[in-house]
Amino acid sequence: MSEQSTSSEVTTFENVPLRPRRIAVLTAGGDAPGMNAAIRAVIRSAAATHIDVIGVRRGYEGLIEDRFESVTGRGVANILQRGGTVLETSRSEEFRRPSGRMRALQNLRDHSVEGLVVIGGEGALQGATVFHRESGLPLMLVPASIDNDVPGTEYSIGFDTAVNTAIDAIDKVRDTMFAFERVFCIEVMGRDSGFIGLSVAIGAGAEAVVVPEIPLDIDDLCRRVEEARLRGKQASIIVVSEGPRTGGVMPIATQLERRLGIKSRIVVLGHIQRGGSPSARDRVLASRMGAEAVRALSECAAASVIGEERGAIVRTPLDHLHERQRRLDTSLIELVYRLSI
Amino acid sequence: MSEQSTSSEVTTFENVPLRPRRIAVLTAGGDAPGMNAAIRAVIRSAAATHIDVIGVRRGYEGLIEDRFESVTGRGVANILQRGGTVLETSRSEEFRRPSGRMRALQNLRDHSVEGLVVIGGEGALQGATVFHRESGLPLMLVPASIDNDVPGTEYSIGFDTAVNTAIDAIDKVRDTMFAFERVFCIEVMGRDSGFIGLSVAIGAGAEAVVVPEIPLDIDDLCRRVEEARLRGKQASIIVVSEGPRTGGVMPIATQLERRLGIKSRIVVLGHIQRGGSPSARDRVLASRMGAEAVRALSECAAASVIGEERGAIVRTPLDHLHERQRRLDTSLIELVYRLSI
Amino acid sequence: MSEQSTSSEVTTFENVPLRPRRIAVLTAGGDAPGMNAAIRAVIRSAAATHIDVIGVRRGYEGLIEDRFESVTGRGVANILQRGGTVLETSRSEEFRRPSGRMRALQNLRDHSVEGLVVIGGEGALQGATVFHRESGLPLMLVPASIDNDVPGTEYSIGFDTAVNTAIDAIDKVRDTMFAFERVFCIEVMGRDSGFIGLSVAIGAGAEAVVVPEIPLDIDDLCRRVEEARLRGKQASIIVVSEGPRTGGVMPIATQLERRLGIKSRIVVLGHIQRGGSPSARDRVLASRMGAEAVRALSECAAASVIGEERGAIVRTPLDHLHERQRRLDTSLIELVYRLSI
Amino acid sequence: MSEQSTSSEVTTFENVPLRPRRIAVLTAGGDAPGMNAAIRAVIRSAAATHIDVIGVRRGYEGLIEDRFESVTGRGVANILQRGGTVLETSRSEEFRRPSGRMRALQNLRDHSVEGLVVIGGEGALQGATVFHRESGLPLMLVPASIDNDVPGTEYSIGFDTAVNTAIDAIDKVRDTMFAFERVFCIEVMGRDSGFIGLSVAIGAGAEAVVVPEIPLDIDDLCRRVEEARLRGKQASIIVVSEGPRTGGVMPIATQLERRLGIKSRIVVLGHIQRGGSPSARDRVLASRMGAEAVRALSECAAASVIGEERGAIVRTPLDHLHERQRRLDTSLIELVYRLSI
Repeated sequence: MSEQSTSSEVTTFENVPLRPRRIAVLTAGGDAPGMNAAIRAVIRSAAATHIDVIGVRRGYEGLIEDRFESVTGRGVANILQRGGTVLETSRSEEFRRPSGRMRALQNLRDHSVEGLVVIGGEGALQGATVFHRESGLPLMLVPASIDNDVPGTEYSIGFDTAVNTAIDAIDKVRDTMFAFERVFCIEVMGRDSGFIGLSVAIGAGAEAVVVPEIPLDIDDLCRRVEEARLRGKQASIIVVSEGPRTGGVMPIATQLERRLGIKSRIVVLGHIQRGGSPSARDRVLASRMGAEAVRALSECAAASVIGEERGAIVRTPLDHLHERQRRLDTSLIELVYRLSI
Repeated sequence: MSEQSTSSEVTTFENVPLRPRRIAVLTAGGDAPGMNAAIRAVIRSAAATHIDVIGVRRGYEGLIEDRFESVTGRGVANILQRGGTVLETSRSEEFRRPSGRMRALQNLRDHSVEGLVVIGGEGALQGATVFHRESGLPLMLVPASIDNDVPGTEYSIGFDTAVNTAIDAIDKVRDTMFAFERVFCIEVMGRDSGFIGLSVAIGAGAEAVVVPEIPLDIDDLCRRVEEARLRGKQASIIVVSEGPRTGGVMPIATQLERRLGIKSRIVVLGHIQRGGSPSARDRVLASRMGAEAVRALSECAAASVIGEERGAIVRTPLDHLHERQRRLDTSLIELVYRLSI
Repeated sequence: MSEQSTSSEVTTFENVPLRPRRIAVLTAGGDAPGMNAAIRAVIRSAAATHIDVIGVRRGYEGLIEDRFESVTGRGVANILQRGGTVLETSRSEEFRRPSGRMRALQNLRDHSVEGLVVIGGEGALQGATVFHRESGLPLMLVPASIDNDVPGTEYSIGFDTAVNTAIDAIDKVRDTMFAFERVFCIEVMGRDSGFIGLSVAIGAGAEAVVVPEIPLDIDDLCRRVEEARLRGKQASIIVVSEGPRTGGVMPIATQLERRLGIKSRIVVLGHIQRGGSPSARDRVLASRMGAEAVRALSECAAASVIGEERGAIVRTPLDHLHERQRRLDTSLIELVYRLSI
Repeated sequence: MSEQSTSSEVTTFENVPLRPRRIAVLTAGGDAPGMNAAIRAVIRSAAATHIDVIGVRRGYEGLIEDRFESVTGRGVANILQRGGTVLETSRSEEFRRPSGRMRALQNLRDHSVEGLVVIGGEGALQGATVFHRESGLPLMLVPASIDNDVPGTEYSIGFDTAVNTAIDAIDKVRDTMFAFERVFCIEVMGRDSGFIGLSVAIGAGAEAVVVPEIPLDIDDLCRRVEEARLRGKQASIIVVSEGPRTGGVMPIATQLERRLGIKSRIVVLGHIQRGGSPSARDRVLASRMGAEAVRALSECAAASVIGEERGAIVRTPLDHLHERQRRLDTSLIELVYRLSI
């Protein structure tokens, strides 16, 4: 949100203390497994409490371009288990501008929408925060992001599935590790945060992990791989978060090969981690959070992030989200090393 | 533990305030995916902190029958991802008797074991509690139980995998649901608690769930299936916990068929849920809990359950476990019905 | 097809030697993973060769009830990987009567359909054979049946997926086998043929298999389990085909328990085997067979079963299908025993 | 085999027409899922027919370095379902030299081995052919290679699993395809042959495939992707075989991005495809081929490749393998394009 919001000409929702009669739901930003489970929970919870619900296709862009469509409880049958999002998503440049948001607001008013559920990640939250501040529209964010970096919740929908997918892949690599002396470098998602990388490294029993939060120390990395060889490990697995902060898997593989004189092999998991049928945890989380978002709107709660904190489903008002970035518990990196003796 | 413990003749560990030099690890009771990950974490954490560690085969029975064997950090390579337990397990009648426990204690002393990690569920905890009270042996319980019913922790190792396994199975049934008018009755584990049943029902989008905590109301069940048909659902999925308290899947399927005049089909998942490669969550939990158990022993903490409570790894001393049975949040049953409109 | 066909009043297709301008496609009988891949292949192959194609919902019943709907190549996007059938299926009593088939024929003529692709199993083939004989409608059967019992082909679509699903399930049971002395009895599909049972038994490394083709010899079964125990096997896996010919898993489990005095545990896989994303093999087979069905129609070939025989895609005219039942190679049962030493 | 074999000083096996009393088994070259299933089948079939069997660790290198170890039928319990090879494998430079092979022969004689089963791919076959020609040792090759390029068989063990693994991965990418305009380039194995690439492209419904057998035509590729966009496809999937002949996924992704002005995303599956639990097909194939190899040795058959040809298990004598390279049916590439309308 680089631009400042300006006073809007359309009437805002500032004085709407009543239970909404109609709400809208959309998915925004990068998609995540479990978004469909959240959509289903929002739509069916609304139906169960006699709140009208309308779907918006392609995220914030759809708000602007008036891609509203009616949905029913039966219409979301059989989507719980599907990856992706039936409402589709987008990254909207237009919504970053006051003019775009004004058009969005006007469309919402034209459709008599009195509350909004946004299912998305950190970027979606930023858009929602500005939009709510300007418009006063009652609004709940259901956190869905494989990066698990949404403030106001310890877990975001999609993270568990993405970690499972990466670990399953590395398990297969592990089967083939015992034949040849090699370093396997596995690139996972998370360009700005190491949540995926760290969980994957622990869960897959990696020898080392390179995350964006900690500057790469190639000497240290080489030393660890070398020590593993001396302890009798033929092969090592290094998990590397993608993106410019780590440099990705290629230069690291090259360096290891050159310095240690052993062959390296790379795997780039890429968008595999964004898809797939959501895990049990992501489905249950999405179901509970989606239901809670509707309950919060029906209770006229302040615009909030729906979160799971300390095991419970909670609401954190958008203006209480002081800390904009969730911090990685880097002490767990030590656990990776300790358990990969 | 029906019998009372009597005074034992072998010296107990009551006055051992020192960091143990050697510990033992075993798995007891029904097995659960992730037990191997916990074994690995215990053994490697001990090695990393220079505590000697010894494995005991076949649980409490192995303590009694002196099935101790030396283990090394390298020896548990490549087990993290495997279901089952490389140390094997058992249900020991002998350990329920003071004479059995005395022999176990003598064997532990003979092997100079000064601390014990027990990986297991509710039954293992009962045995551990009596054994610790009698012997004073420093002891940590790492909760592993697909039933998720261990007090002192919100999650037990294996539960997440079992729920994922059952949901994957039901997803396949769902593919085939749209052809014929049918009720599918799926029997899942959990004879004394509905944790699996309830999570599976939410995650699989079941139309109804029957758990041991709530007496079966067959009229209500028939009414719900009938209403689902009227809403346009051709087929319904009913998740049923196994065991005498629900009666299992057979009589329910028969009743539904007779009363509603539609065909029913059954699936009995059985031991499928006990096996399989552990999920990401179970591996990370097992790794953290196993490491914490060793840390607790090395810090001479009181005999405790290692738990995950409100998102953090905690220790609850055995004598603080007042509530012997974890309670199911039955309000979530309402969510099943609400989301299966 | 118990009834004989009578002379029909609607004109038949007997003299249509020309390349069809429009064809229809349907799925009939029990569903099988890969049916969607076959539907996609038929529709897109037709589109690529400029033949009009129309979908019929709910199998033969849909022919009778005029559930025709236009389909496009783009309309079958993203179904290749899905279990079930987007065209739905049914078992039609009405189509067994001449009157039903006459109505079906009239509807086909009304929609100017000049060729038909039926995707289904043995029952669908019987219906197709009678229908073709009466009507002369050019017709290709694409064999899809998890039972793998369609004459004219060595493999039917869905069989490979069903076998993989059952084996995956048994793998999980195997993880948990080594703790307790037990017999696990696993019921798989195939009430009239042991193709699934036998492949599952070989692939899962079962100790024994009970198929409909060979009368159950409970004495022999008990002896084999007993011998396995004497060789050091704690637990055994018995794969049992469902249905009245074997008696299913229950009585066998009871007998084993009573005679051998060891605990038995049952798993009933049921409809799990009918669903799930199709395997690579089923997708490739469905894609090739669907394309071949359209090619055969466009070449005005005789009404045929599209098959895979000796590794090649072949056409067998319906009236050359002398042998109505594929025979199980029971010599492979010996392989099960030999490899489960 | 760059060097010519010279006359060897150790006695050869030329005149051993008798049923071998002892055989050895090894795995050579790149590993493949199902090798363990084949090892198990060889060892247990031998045991069942009272032939002594001995395992050789690390392939041909192990023959030279005398890494023979006794194995038993019970000792290969619970390996059927595991990826990798419990006997480990290697690529042996030493075995390419007459001196190395002579030492191997001497070791075999010292252990009284009268027959050898080699489980491996094209490279292993070359070594076996030279070795047999020189030594006369009765020898059977069980083809295991994810590349599926072994002459004398239509299917090699591991191919089916590798294709399934790649397709599962692409399915996940597909879930996430509908949000953004993108080209996904997926690199699969098969540097010298397009069997994996082509089957994966058909099974995953890719828009295009680039295999080593056909020179890359980047103009044609761009045109196809462009046409797919015009037909309404937001995203396309291109499957690319790894290696110097295609150039791999990187340059293709870059070109597509530059020429078409849409974003590309890459996935490099790498060694994921070599691991994982073998598929049903690979297990059954491995079981049958392993048993057949032992049968062939016990019948004093000529040194052969055990193969699956036209649906049957066959033996092709090594000196009848005229065609050294299996040819890809490139006509199926047309099917990829036809079905991705």
